[in-house]
Amino acid sequence: MTMPAENTRIVLASRPVGEPRPSDFRLETVPVPAPGDGQLLLKTLYLSLDPYMRGRMSAAKSYADPVELGDVMVGGTVCEVIESRDPAFHAGDVVLSFSGWQTHSVIDAHHVRKLDPHAAPVQSWLGVLGMPGFTGYAGLLRIGDPKPGETVVVAAATGPVGSAVGQIAKIKGARAVGIGGGPEKVAYLREIGFDAAIDHRAPDFADQLAAACPDGIDVYFENVGGAVWAAVFPLLNDFARVPVCGLVSHYNDTAAPAGPDRLPGFMSDVLKKSLTIRGFIQSEFVKSDFKHFVGDMSGWIHAGRIAHREDIVEGLENAPAAFNGMLAGRNFGKLIIKVA
Amino acid sequence: MTMPAENTRIVLASRPVGEPRPSDFRLETVPVPAPGDGQLLLKTLYLSLDPYMRGRMSAAKSYADPVELGDVMVGGTVCEVIESRDPAFHAGDVVLSFSGWQTHSVIDAHHVRKLDPHAAPVQSWLGVLGMPGFTGYAGLLRIGDPKPGETVVVAAATGPVGSAVGQIAKIKGARAVGIGGGPEKVAYLREIGFDAAIDHRAPDFADQLAAACPDGIDVYFENVGGAVWAAVFPLLNDFARVPVCGLVSHYNDTAAPAGPDRLPGFMSDVLKKSLTIRGFIQSEFVKSDFKHFVGDMSGWIHAGRIAHREDIVEGLENAPAAFNGMLAGRNFGKLIIKVA
Repeated sequence: MTMPAENTRIVLASRPVGEPRPSDFRLETVPVPAPGDGQLLLKTLYLSLDPYMRGRMSAAKSYADPVELGDVMVGGTVCEVIESRDPAFHAGDVVLSFSGWQTHSVIDAHHVRKLDPHAAPVQSWLGVLGMPGFTGYAGLLRIGDPKPGETVVVAAATGPVGSAVGQIAKIKGARAVGIGGGPEKVAYLREIGFDAAIDHRAPDFADQLAAACPDGIDVYFENVGGAVWAAVFPLLNDFARVPVCGLVSHYNDTAAPAGPDRLPGFMSDVLKKSLTIRGFIQSEFVKSDFKHFVGDMSGWIHAGRIAHREDIVEGLENAPAAFNGMLAGRNFGKLIIKVA
Repeated sequence: MTMPAENTRIVLASRPVGEPRPSDFRLETVPVPAPGDGQLLLKTLYLSLDPYMRGRMSAAKSYADPVELGDVMVGGTVCEVIESRDPAFHAGDVVLSFSGWQTHSVIDAHHVRKLDPHAAPVQSWLGVLGMPGFTGYAGLLRIGDPKPGETVVVAAATGPVGSAVGQIAKIKGARAVGIGGGPEKVAYLREIGFDAAIDHRAPDFADQLAAACPDGIDVYFENVGGAVWAAVFPLLNDFARVPVCGLVSHYNDTAAPAGPDRLPGFMSDVLKKSLTIRGFIQSEFVKSDFKHFVGDMSGWIHAGRIAHREDIVEGLENAPAAFNGMLAGRNFGKLIIKVA
């Protein structure tokens, strides 16, 4: 057995104000500790980068504790077992873990899940078969609850959450309208079966969206906020449902925008249209829905009903820049860092 | 049979801008038409005044069509049958109707419901046993869904909706915190069993509310908006539910208030706290819940578990002023006009 001598990791050096800068992170190399009883020493193969991580960089209370300064940035990973002190695992096993932005980690064996590397490319457990795919599945089906013939709109639709939302909406018999940034993404959305696809960078974006939704919007899966939300909101039908999954266009905001104050008018529409606005984190639905998700999603992928796309960046040291690119919409597909 | 010679009615003369002025209404006297086959001639005994009527005075699309200029203002009524051309009804019957702001009306018999005048004072079908009581019941139980030990906050708590909400919350084992305007209303809320009662006119209102909700707020039944909503919002717990039933403090608004724009921050809290914000109109729940409501509410009143209070104003001609008083919180209890 070859012991790795060193762990390379990225820690949070300071709390970003607005867009994270390189100096908010620190790449450091530390010795790898030996695993104790019931623990595993893992080598990271793939690291998932996801928008929620921006929230963890801030000190403000959110649904999860912030990353402390000096701590390794959190994140979902696919790892290989290098050394096992738990009888259920062996060197060479591939596991799903939450090891964060680092090349090696020591973790309690009951915190990881063994993956079958022959069932699907292992990195897909970070995307279409993992947390992002499940986020789209649970939020759409448990909150959005689309009916056949209804119109479902989703932004960041080429991302791993949005593309799951739109394609599952189609499977459930709804019309899917996807929003992406730039002609290449829009063309891809049409290719994978969205009924309409719109470029949010178009100067007449709001008009295009209205034209693409002649019967209004019944479900808007919110993961961006900002100008997209402003264009969607007037189109919502009575009894529309809005699962609020993310607000990526606001994650770098440093203050409330200038007025007028749209909140009273928003609440008035919530009342007049009997709208449902429901924030959620996928973890709420894991116990009730995750098994169904894996079964459904595997079947859909196998049947060619769900396409997915990955955007793989090599090298842990590129994680901070790739992360910023994702918040700005510069990646295309599920963003994954190939670490080893 | 004595035929009434005339119908006195209040029609919408112009669409109010801000608070309705006397000149927005016109009191007029017209001949009473004779009922046709299957119709009833009714004399209005009681007219209900409710905040939703402000919406009907505006031309803007809402959940119901606006009242046209020159048309009689709409409203729920308790009426006596003067002449029946339907075999199921007889002169002297008392019925629940939607005859509006007038002394007499001719209406299709299938649009009214016969009342048992011995079961309860007939005007209570406009309040605690009627649409307002049902609004509180359905919104609280179907959307708010309070659990034993949770904290339920409601404003306009001496009104017919709010007092139902608070008292039903208590029956379901929750803590009820009521908000009212002025010491008399606050004292009444304590008298009828609210765990805490707060005067929204107090300069330290927000601090008092926070002190009254040491475990945060799990259900906020929204019927006022404005400063109360601003004080409630930071206290909402994770997974809190907000049935949005009314926004009486905004009904006379003529423009969006000055900034900053609180909407993005609001959506961010919806996300971080997994909040549910759900507008509703009671009619959505009539088919599924109204019968249960009448059974439950009659039982609770009989058992002394639900107190209710009426504010009865004599004379149809006083309806416009009484209506304005209600929007400004100057009435105390369910506002009803005694017409005949």
